[in-house]
Amino acid sequence: MQTKDYVSANKDRFVAELIELLKIPSVSADSKHKADMIRAAEYVKQALEKAGADKVEICDTGGHPIVYGEKIIDPKLKTVLVYGHYDVQPPDPVHLWTSPPFEPVIKDEKIYARGSCDDKGQVYMHIKAFELMMQTNTLPCNVKFMIEGEEEVGSSNLGTWIRNNKDRLKGDVILISDTSIIANDTPSIDVGLRGLSYVEVEVTGPDHDLHSGVYGGAVGNPIQILCEMITKMKDKDNHITIPGFYDDVLVLSEQDRAELNKAPFDLTDYKKDLGIADVHGETGYTVLERTGIRPTFEANGIWGGYTGEGAKTVLPSKAYAKLSMRLVPNQSSDKITELFKNYFESMAPKSVTVKVTPHHGGEPVVTPTDSVAFKAASKAMEEAFGKKPIPTRGGGSIPIVALFEKELGLKSVLMGFGLDSDLIHSPNEHFGIFNFLKGIETIPLFFRYYAEMSK
Amino acid sequence: MQTKDYVSANKDRFVAELIELLKIPSVSADSKHKADMIRAAEYVKQALEKAGADKVEICDTGGHPIVYGEKIIDPKLKTVLVYGHYDVQPPDPVHLWTSPPFEPVIKDEKIYARGSCDDKGQVYMHIKAFELMMQTNTLPCNVKFMIEGEEEVGSSNLGTWIRNNKDRLKGDVILISDTSIIANDTPSIDVGLRGLSYVEVEVTGPDHDLHSGVYGGAVGNPIQILCEMITKMKDKDNHITIPGFYDDVLVLSEQDRAELNKAPFDLTDYKKDLGIADVHGETGYTVLERTGIRPTFEANGIWGGYTGEGAKTVLPSKAYAKLSMRLVPNQSSDKITELFKNYFESMAPKSVTVKVTPHHGGEPVVTPTDSVAFKAASKAMEEAFGKKPIPTRGGGSIPIVALFEKELGLKSVLMGFGLDSDLIHSPNEHFGIFNFLKGIETIPLFFRYYAEMSK
Repeated sequence: MQTKDYVSANKDRFVAELIELLKIPSVSADSKHKADMIRAAEYVKQALEKAGADKVEICDTGGHPIVYGEKIIDPKLKTVLVYGHYDVQPPDPVHLWTSPPFEPVIKDEKIYARGSCDDKGQVYMHIKAFELMMQTNTLPCNVKFMIEGEEEVGSSNLGTWIRNNKDRLKGDVILISDTSIIANDTPSIDVGLRGLSYVEVEVTGPDHDLHSGVYGGAVGNPIQILCEMITKMKDKDNHITIPGFYDDVLVLSEQDRAELNKAPFDLTDYKKDLGIADVHGETGYTVLERTGIRPTFEANGIWGGYTGEGAKTVLPSKAYAKLSMRLVPNQSSDKITELFKNYFESMAPKSVTVKVTPHHGGEPVVTPTDSVAFKAASKAMEEAFGKKPIPTRGGGSIPIVALFEKELGLKSVLMGFGLDSDLIHSPNEHFGIFNFLKGIETIPLFFRYYAEMSK
Repeated sequence: MQTKDYVSANKDRFVAELIELLKIPSVSADSKHKADMIRAAEYVKQALEKAGADKVEICDTGGHPIVYGEKIIDPKLKTVLVYGHYDVQPPDPVHLWTSPPFEPVIKDEKIYARGSCDDKGQVYMHIKAFELMMQTNTLPCNVKFMIEGEEEVGSSNLGTWIRNNKDRLKGDVILISDTSIIANDTPSIDVGLRGLSYVEVEVTGPDHDLHSGVYGGAVGNPIQILCEMITKMKDKDNHITIPGFYDDVLVLSEQDRAELNKAPFDLTDYKKDLGIADVHGETGYTVLERTGIRPTFEANGIWGGYTGEGAKTVLPSKAYAKLSMRLVPNQSSDKITELFKNYFESMAPKSVTVKVTPHHGGEPVVTPTDSVAFKAASKAMEEAFGKKPIPTRGGGSIPIVALFEKELGLKSVLMGFGLDSDLIHSPNEHFGIFNFLKGIETIPLFFRYYAEMSK
């Protein structure tokens, strides 16, 4: 049986099984979902077992667990390590969802639910592709799965677990589906990912909330001062002002920049998709460069004072923000966090105190395009989509790519099947059924070509 | 019986009755407390009736009702209109209260509850002072009460109600206790109040939340842009940059400024009370000037993006702020709101859209110090405290003072008994039992001297 036919014969069941997984609100950032995390891990474990994996185990990490499973058909053959995550982003703001985030619905051939694309849907492609290879007797090499539950909160326990499981994790290449293609008729493979430094800041003015009429004008207002400090993080050209921030940035050659800008991109469509009159970013760089090869500073959240209905004339004691920086090769997450912290603390006026709490980080990566694994992925995609995939630079971060390289000495292939328009991390996240099934069809082709080309 | 003796004999009952009123969460800003507003109005009505007032009525205003009551002993005598409000500020942030905001407790001779000082406690002083004059047969003139329920949300229905009740409200002077004294051994009377312009702003970037990794660096972030816009509202000297903002500001003479700065003020104590290392404000002005005679711009609340536990890498669609400006004579609330709106809209970059919603305003006022009523208040306080009160300029706003002058042609006396340290509008608001009882003792003295000096 052709892989295509197996997918076609089983597609309704594949979607129905994914929908069950999507119903579990496995929000790793929110401690009230701890039990849901376990339920999601159990679901992944049982799905791997049913598909034919051996030694499936829910591994304690100190934080949310990792699901491990494997199928060793011959120790002398190559081994592909599949990585993914079953945790999801918080669904906030919930009121903007047109259907509840954990009650999946299918509309216009897309599955709407938190995690449908990032990353439960893409993880489930791998489990079903594995089932397919087992059922059709076409698994051509060994496979190991590690599906974690802390990707959306920085994978903070993954490093220790990997170091403690180096033998079990021995393999030849990491395969990850947690990225996008350019369009359903334009496949692509990510060859670079930005790193991340994420911090929370707290600015304290007076030690209790004050009446803004009685004290306003004479006491430092932490909201105003936080706004001023965030403003000062960029100059008028939207260059980041943190001293030393750009020191380690890998500067691309004019030729590499020209190559990057050849990717299909239409500014009018881009603005229309986002509902914006204009883009906004660092002077001197195109949109593809701003999101692909340049580091950024973004405010992800801000709060302070009275935010309820109506008016309250308060001069608050505290204001907060969640701030993050996307990093590019060869910036270091820890170093950037440190530079930020020093700068932010140094710019605080005497009328306030500030506290900087690092959340999590991840290192930027570039993956090789001359490896057997990359070539196998490219050939698999070309066969499945009927078009050769374009190598692209992704703006997001998958911190574990650098971690795998450091701890296991393995390179990764980032063969994702989502679309940038899937609204991951946003209300109304969705995943095209076309993309889900195309992934299940492409993955066995990757295994076949990887095994063949490795011989 | 001396007023002092009556207060002393009944003080425990006075406090117990106030505590019952404080238990009602009459938060006018929050529509879910609508029924509580009615309960509070009922309580005030019954208290006025029990104290001996006639024609007590809960008057519909379209919004939260006004409680009216009167005692006319002789139409030829003078009439004092007592104004106050039974609505309170929202209790947020609730988790910072050491006891629940609507479960009053007495600690260190102070009553802790939302509204204990602002303004239920000070309203209740008037009701009990009235009871005292009725019980001791010492009411020397007519009195009318109007206790409203929308002071904390801009008194937006009060103007219409006053215009429709001009006959009923005929009188000679307005007496208001909604301000503070300098200290329990330093009585003072407010002779100026700042006005208010209060707006809510919304900044919209992309029409849905985005992944900050995929889009960060290329799309205008509404939090960042809101911060930049708020920052631009002030220059490096903390002068407000809204064009025309200072045009109508009444500039005080050097002599008046010198007079104002004679009020007792200790910068070290001020900083210590607030837990701040330094004050913060407009260059060239003292703290008393910054809070008394200079207009201000304050951020009262800000929110946008992810504000929950942990980290979410979102580039949000929207960010919001509540912003207010305190105004001084002769600024106009409507004009300043309009200037702000035009300026804020004009500074928005093309990558976002902005919306400005005015909340409520109030006009700044100066009250006369050469009137019979002011002299009576001064003499009453001097007798009760054993020390002549200092005329001061309050930083807060009681918008209805200007309204009364315009609609009824009446001047107000601002004889308040709170302390700046009472944490009004903040968690742990409280009101000293000394202050509560001293108010009940002083008010009948005001009535006595006002009636005598008017003859």
